[in-house]
Amino acid sequence: MLLVLDGLGGLPREPGGPTELEAAATPNLDRLAAEGQSGLSQPIGLGITPGSGPGHLALFGYDPVGSNIGRGALSALGLGLRLDAGDLGVRLNFCTLDDRGRVVDRRAGRIETGLNRALVEKLNKIEIPGVELEFATESQHRAVLIVRGAYLSPAVQETDPQAVGVPPLEPEPLTAAAQHASAVLRSVIEAVRDCLGSESPANFVLMRGYAGLPELESLNSLYGLQAVCLATYPMYKGLARVAGMSVVDGLESADEQMAALGVAWDDHDYFFVHHKAPDARGEDGDFDAKAAAIEEMDRRLPALMDLEPDVLVVTGDHSTPSVLRQHSWHPVPCLFWGGRVLPDSLERFGERACGQGSLGVFPAQSIMALMLAHGGRLQKFGA
Amino acid sequence: MLLVLDGLGGLPREPGGPTELEAAATPNLDRLAAEGQSGLSQPIGLGITPGSGPGHLALFGYDPVGSNIGRGALSALGLGLRLDAGDLGVRLNFCTLDDRGRVVDRRAGRIETGLNRALVEKLNKIEIPGVELEFATESQHRAVLIVRGAYLSPAVQETDPQAVGVPPLEPEPLTAAAQHASAVLRSVIEAVRDCLGSESPANFVLMRGYAGLPELESLNSLYGLQAVCLATYPMYKGLARVAGMSVVDGLESADEQMAALGVAWDDHDYFFVHHKAPDARGEDGDFDAKAAAIEEMDRRLPALMDLEPDVLVVTGDHSTPSVLRQHSWHPVPCLFWGGRVLPDSLERFGERACGQGSLGVFPAQSIMALMLAHGGRLQKFGA
Repeated sequence: MLLVLDGLGGLPREPGGPTELEAAATPNLDRLAAEGQSGLSQPIGLGITPGSGPGHLALFGYDPVGSNIGRGALSALGLGLRLDAGDLGVRLNFCTLDDRGRVVDRRAGRIETGLNRALVEKLNKIEIPGVELEFATESQHRAVLIVRGAYLSPAVQETDPQAVGVPPLEPEPLTAAAQHASAVLRSVIEAVRDCLGSESPANFVLMRGYAGLPELESLNSLYGLQAVCLATYPMYKGLARVAGMSVVDGLESADEQMAALGVAWDDHDYFFVHHKAPDARGEDGDFDAKAAAIEEMDRRLPALMDLEPDVLVVTGDHSTPSVLRQHSWHPVPCLFWGGRVLPDSLERFGERACGQGSLGVFPAQSIMALMLAHGGRLQKFGA
Repeated sequence: MLLVLDGLGGLPREPGGPTELEAAATPNLDRLAAEGQSGLSQPIGLGITPGSGPGHLALFGYDPVGSNIGRGALSALGLGLRLDAGDLGVRLNFCTLDDRGRVVDRRAGRIETGLNRALVEKLNKIEIPGVELEFATESQHRAVLIVRGAYLSPAVQETDPQAVGVPPLEPEPLTAAAQHASAVLRSVIEAVRDCLGSESPANFVLMRGYAGLPELESLNSLYGLQAVCLATYPMYKGLARVAGMSVVDGLESADEQMAALGVAWDDHDYFFVHHKAPDARGEDGDFDAKAAAIEEMDRRLPALMDLEPDVLVVTGDHSTPSVLRQHSWHPVPCLFWGGRVLPDSLERFGERACGQGSLGVFPAQSIMALMLAHGGRLQKFGA
């Protein structure tokens, strides 16, 4: 079982003080740290702040850099949109063109999300022969387009000129195989121009981050795992699908996650349980609420342990210190618990305690191999 | 001096208890840990259980994955058979074919080793023009064939179909350069069919793990070392030969190892001393006997130190917890002692103590560079 407390790692609110995790009362995590082995998980590398995509891919055992998911696909997954093999995800910025077609604001004055939704509703009336389009709102000036049904190459020039006073770039094909994608996107762009031409300030869109669904070998194919995802947020379910996990849909609370975990228990052997709240409260900048979110999961641990997992790993996909209000590069507390784990006998679970753990500072991508080893799933290398 | 306590790392027999090494009374190792620097050696990578081949290659400073020795060669080395450059080692399974030539048991009912020896004696009468054959018994249904004198490529299809109810595969050449090897192995297979056809249940062999001697650059060529191996078991002497070490043959006890070490002292500057017992007792599942085997080597340490090595490293090639009765993926206690080593002042030598050592968790492959450095054998890199 991989229990991800999203954004787990933190920083002190005041010099000399505890981190959110250290301030939280976590008797159950502390007991697991005493019985297990701890260390600090490095999601990408020293000094690198992970996004949720690479952060989770590393936890699932994939190369978080080489397997990085394109922004268009990640945005689609993050919004919970369907993205199948061959579909193309495109990030859109609403922008403002002047009457000579030159970009005057690459973000259309950061329009309100409500206006974004109204514009997306108009855009979704666009029809292009041979493909299916879905526009979706992210927030402010950011939106996503998914082009389905045409196996389009993402090797197309981005249209954002990264400057004002010049016209948008054309979606030129960057390879011969991208001719069709280029033609489809030109048609989309002309239709968008017609659709939004009379709007203000958002009278056009810029395209970037073209990406198809990453084709990763599944956890089943790689390791013979029957993996299942128990998550409430779309992005984490999307990332789990990329790894070939079964996904329990419709979960909206931790209670529902725990109930679904029990139901899934007998038919699976790898469980990805995702707890979003510590990251969300960290991004809110609310130290006490982040500590409380950690305590909430700590109280649920006895019920998890009643399922008797062979191996339990508790960690995060990255740190989200509430004093920074965003993801950070700090390594993430991580503990391994299981019958073949040599205990560190640490007194508690926390950033500084994990720094004394015998796992040391280690790459998050190694967690999967170590879980498999402790679960008795790996054979010897060499004779 | 590299002192390898084979299978050194262990696990507690009962929750909260000590490991074998922690339970052992090791006053001399404890003193070296106080005077030296400790850490946990990772032979291959997190979660990976090393075989003896890659485990030792890493300790000698070679890439344990890229330099992995093929099974056929390793089996030959393990049996103490001669394997020169150009020779081909092949692992054999005695198997049972039905009267239509289909495999009905890939292991011939796991025949007794005694029967294996009798069959190997028959097989050693086979003669194939242009090559020299040596068949040798491993155990039960497992045997080895060495083909000498023909510089044969190992790029030949394995004949084990990995299934029953189908005939063995043919030793097809997988590259153009393997045409000759394929032809020779076809001749061998036909001769084996004639030789064993009337036997039961072992009336044929399946071939796999073709491998020549790995061609590693010697420790002398790489580092200017006059290296010598003091080991009692064939496999470790074979691995030392792969690294270009001189090997003292005929050693059968620790007393003889120690005496030979003294004799070799003045003419060499790298000493690989191999102590097999901790691994063997771990594989027996005998916690107390493994602890006693560690204590036995501890009592010999003063005599080793009387030789006044510049640098002493004590570690294992992998862990062999007696509770698991087999090699494991757990990192291995390791200590460095020498005049240029910054002491950790640890109170003792053990898994948990080494987890607090200032070397941290580090790759076994780095041990050689650190030994050379502490021995004053490396120059500055860059100006």
